[in-house]
Amino acid sequence: MREWMRGQNLQEIETPALVLDVAAAERNIRKMAELFAGGPTRLRPHVKTHKTPLLAHKQLAAGAIGITCAKLGEAEVMVAAGVRDVLVSSEVVGARKIARLLALNRHARVITVVDDGNAAREISEAAEREGMRIPTLIDLDVGQGRTGVAPGEPALALVQAAARMPGLQLVGLQGYEGHLQHVVDPDERGERCRAAMKALTDTATMIREAGHELDIVSTSGTGTHAYAGGYPGVTELQPGSYVVMDSQYASVKGLSFEHALTVLTTVVSKVKPDVAIVDAGYKTLSSDSGMPAIRNLGDARFAFGGDEHGKLLFEQPRGDIRVGDKFELVPSHCDTTINLHDIYYVVRDGRLEDIWPIAARGKIQ
Amino acid sequence: MREWMRGQNLQEIETPALVLDVAAAERNIRKMAELFAGGPTRLRPHVKTHKTPLLAHKQLAAGAIGITCAKLGEAEVMVAAGVRDVLVSSEVVGARKIARLLALNRHARVITVVDDGNAAREISEAAEREGMRIPTLIDLDVGQGRTGVAPGEPALALVQAAARMPGLQLVGLQGYEGHLQHVVDPDERGERCRAAMKALTDTATMIREAGHELDIVSTSGTGTHAYAGGYPGVTELQPGSYVVMDSQYASVKGLSFEHALTVLTTVVSKVKPDVAIVDAGYKTLSSDSGMPAIRNLGDARFAFGGDEHGKLLFEQPRGDIRVGDKFELVPSHCDTTINLHDIYYVVRDGRLEDIWPIAARGKIQ
Repeated sequence: MREWMRGQNLQEIETPALVLDVAAAERNIRKMAELFAGGPTRLRPHVKTHKTPLLAHKQLAAGAIGITCAKLGEAEVMVAAGVRDVLVSSEVVGARKIARLLALNRHARVITVVDDGNAAREISEAAEREGMRIPTLIDLDVGQGRTGVAPGEPALALVQAAARMPGLQLVGLQGYEGHLQHVVDPDERGERCRAAMKALTDTATMIREAGHELDIVSTSGTGTHAYAGGYPGVTELQPGSYVVMDSQYASVKGLSFEHALTVLTTVVSKVKPDVAIVDAGYKTLSSDSGMPAIRNLGDARFAFGGDEHGKLLFEQPRGDIRVGDKFELVPSHCDTTINLHDIYYVVRDGRLEDIWPIAARGKIQ
Repeated sequence: MREWMRGQNLQEIETPALVLDVAAAERNIRKMAELFAGGPTRLRPHVKTHKTPLLAHKQLAAGAIGITCAKLGEAEVMVAAGVRDVLVSSEVVGARKIARLLALNRHARVITVVDDGNAAREISEAAEREGMRIPTLIDLDVGQGRTGVAPGEPALALVQAAARMPGLQLVGLQGYEGHLQHVVDPDERGERCRAAMKALTDTATMIREAGHELDIVSTSGTGTHAYAGGYPGVTELQPGSYVVMDSQYASVKGLSFEHALTVLTTVVSKVKPDVAIVDAGYKTLSSDSGMPAIRNLGDARFAFGGDEHGKLLFEQPRGDIRVGDKFELVPSHCDTTINLHDIYYVVRDGRLEDIWPIAARGKIQ
């Protein structure tokens, strides 16, 4: 950052800007860490949300045993920044990606997941050629309907196949109940989460009874951490959004993390009395999970006005709102909004403390 | 790019990848240029779509009189790459942005738009202090309901105010009929476009009759170029999407540009017979304008499966589709999808020719 920027008031920051309230993020990191400080379940936070090595190191310093990444490209950024224990939660497919997975494993423990025998064999054969064994989880579908083999026999069959592959070191199971993260009612969320955890841990038991060791049973996100975290047999949790939260999670009852992420935006046009046009549109705020919320502006609603514009819609004429006024929006989905931005404007007590590059932004490969 | 990549077949390219069929893009650029080669209406293509200096230079070489940018940050990238005539189509607000607008005008003609007297005065006063006059368009709302003063008297009043501001050089009007770009039926689109053009050009006439010179009347996008381009009094068109197109524009009848943009994606999980999970989700494909189309895969449909995953949904079991298979998706919205990517994989005749940085990606300020 340029030195003249340091200490700027929030209202002086150039817009549109992705603003991180770093004190709130630090409190969120501490709060989640304290929940699981005594074990037996431990934290392996997902960094696909914040995509930033310094925040990952803060999570590790608070007690996390490692981190989770969605893609190899994220893992490369994190390992380069000194993180030593990484789970890549998406399947690694193809010779060139496998080569990258192997290269990473020379510098850190980088665990992979598999749900397909042929894909697992490809990793194993490449590892064997390098004299390596890649730590591997079997990916289970515990109801999300995305990746993962079915619990029970299909999982055991893949375990038995993987156990015969000399380049793989089978270390556990992953089963992510992504479909439950935003179930609003905590009782329903808890009940459905426990059903998913039963499928996951029953499968772990079945696999152990068949003679295979499993150290890791990895699961969960921000919405379900409380239920999965207390479930016997679950060893690791992968929450990510809790560090900053978003307006979609705000409607999920029973979560007590703070909103640490906003987009600061400026009114660039105010021709009509009941609409203000701001400089934040689809290229600044993701829209996959609905509309952002507006801070401190009564019952005003946000609507997208294209790639570069948003609309603040008022119930009553607002002659007091003028071109140049700035407002804070709470993104509806933190992960995809952060991924639109190159930098965080890091604010503490309402003043600009630093600029952080979002080092893993766009690392989709 | 790494030299070993050059000449790769499309199917060898690492995924997910944003693929530009450069020959198709070149044909699109040529086709649009030929439509307006004889004038009187000229092209000032919007580069917020492709965000890439080399494509802007191809448009200029084909006859465009300049380019349009959405944000100052895009204009800075383009001016740095040698573009000499730029319209920034969004209002420039605030002292620091005005300073950037002035700085740019020392190296190129960078035209601004205004729809607010106070905001215009701020630009004028800053320009006057530097001994500059900034070329300025009055931004008109011709029905989109976003930025812009109303046609007729309100526009004339702003012109008269701006004409007294010594730091502004009033050069014309902008009126973008963004709400009409995706009207499917060409007759309806044409009729509504001509009504918008009447409001725009009638206002231009009224302003000229009041004694003000207007060189530029700027409007239009890919969907309406044919109607706005032939309308008497319109001098410049701002189409952007025509260079690459997208699946949203594919449903707009009467457009004959080629699809030059796809996302190459790999099947990373194929557990169920009628679903394949691919490595392209919300961080790879924008979702603001619906689902991407799938190329060469019968009646398969795409559904998002989260930030990093998509689902190919089949009507019938597809045992022939396996982990590692690659498919091309046509993004639903080119602008916002391109803005997610750092690079184009530039392909000609099915082989990788080059990698181009998307230099203005993320330039939201």
